[in-house]
Amino acid sequence: MKLLKQITSIQNPYIKSLVQLQEKAKARKQSGTFLMEGKREISIAIKGGYEMETLLFLPEICSETDARALSKNAELIEINKEVYQKLAYRDTTEGILAVAKTKSMQLSDLKLSENPLILVAEAPEKPGNIGALLRTADAANLDAVIIANPKSDLYNPNIVRSSVGCLFTIQIATGTTSEIIAFLKERNINFYCATLQNSTSYHTQDYTTPTALVVGTEATGLTEEWRKEATQNIIIPMQGEIDSMNVSVAAAILIFEAKRQRGF
Amino acid sequence: MKLLKQITSIQNPYIKSLVQLQEKAKARKQSGTFLMEGKREISIAIKGGYEMETLLFLPEICSETDARALSKNAELIEINKEVYQKLAYRDTTEGILAVAKTKSMQLSDLKLSENPLILVAEAPEKPGNIGALLRTADAANLDAVIIANPKSDLYNPNIVRSSVGCLFTIQIATGTTSEIIAFLKERNINFYCATLQNSTSYHTQDYTTPTALVVGTEATGLTEEWRKEATQNIIIPMQGEIDSMNVSVAAAILIFEAKRQRGF
Repeated sequence: MKLLKQITSIQNPYIKSLVQLQEKAKARKQSGTFLMEGKREISIAIKGGYEMETLLFLPEICSETDARALSKNAELIEINKEVYQKLAYRDTTEGILAVAKTKSMQLSDLKLSENPLILVAEAPEKPGNIGALLRTADAANLDAVIIANPKSDLYNPNIVRSSVGCLFTIQIATGTTSEIIAFLKERNINFYCATLQNSTSYHTQDYTTPTALVVGTEATGLTEEWRKEATQNIIIPMQGEIDSMNVSVAAAILIFEAKRQRGF
Repeated sequence: MKLLKQITSIQNPYIKSLVQLQEKAKARKQSGTFLMEGKREISIAIKGGYEMETLLFLPEICSETDARALSKNAELIEINKEVYQKLAYRDTTEGILAVAKTKSMQLSDLKLSENPLILVAEAPEKPGNIGALLRTADAANLDAVIIANPKSDLYNPNIVRSSVGCLFTIQIATGTTSEIIAFLKERNINFYCATLQNSTSYHTQDYTTPTALVVGTEATGLTEEWRKEATQNIIIPMQGEIDSMNVSVAAAILIFEAKRQRGF
């Protein structure tokens, strides 16, 4: 019987490399891996086609058998509490971490339905907002979420965490604004850009044909390229004194108006 | 000429009491005051009827004249950088803080229009979610936001901050679930409770008459009392794998469907 690998020191070079995975986008990019945790999330990711390279389990909480049940192919490593606490981002009682392989997020990989509904977010800044966007995208069963000019990689631990698994359930692609506009035009997908200028109320438009809804940042909105090329610029009418809406809230209002028009 | 009061030590008992205001709901309740910052937010709060007791300014950034221009009645205190950094929650360049008087948040204080649209949130947990709810409520120009069984006071600094001033622009009341249900019934306001049980799709209901939209927590939803007493329980149809939506996102979808039906 093969002896199980054990790591009990946070000074272990492999553990140090996992800390880098959490902290540095560059480390994730170079290794093609990221760190995640929790049975539920790991199961969802595997179901979503993610490959687990390594599972690290804390035997007091998660048995070797339970860890093995998650993935037959992953290397299993037993860790102790100190190592677990160094790597885990939440004070969970789940006792399991995984090193998963990242997926390519090419536009060309997207598989769209005949009448797609897509969300495009340009340069979203806060991981929490991206997580909320992905949760809404999952709930609406969107064809895809496309991030234009991303500010960070999607495997940032704050995005992984705030998406509560939705990062793994929906198709995601990234690209430059120009690439995405070309992609949408080639496929005759109408795209509606949420702006404050030259725009018409979102609820007057027809989203029952192939549609992409495009949102920008809270601070600066969408870049001119989007606004110039849009099928139509749209606005959510606001009647308050501050009129400042969270980007994930604005996106959800647009997405669910499209869903309503499509009869869910 | 009256000499301006100056405080240059974070050991000063008054400064220590302001730290308590930030950290402890009890201190806010006992003193009837809370701490806020930034010219824009202070102006919005004054416009919203909030009284400033004291303004603390950092002269390198905000002049005495600019501070005085904000409020004629507030006591002015000049502070230094160390005191400012102790009290300010963001690394702003605005150089001004205010001790403001809290407002009563009684249901009986609410002034409603003839055909009100109200959001009720039961026991919302995260300050960031409450801030996002308030931003949406401002943008939709709701008659009021009512918090049922609040978990924290609304002057929690994380709520003040995340509401970006919307805490001061809309009417807010708190109460127990029973009190709020009685309040709505007395005024013949239909209330639609977002639930997962015995519910019908939100977009099939008519929100053009006096309406309250009621949302619960992400973790446990609404309590039975709401679900039993509702004019109608409603659901946002979800078609994903995770089907988990941020509470402020769900509320916004409901609010803007009502706004759409009302023709904005």
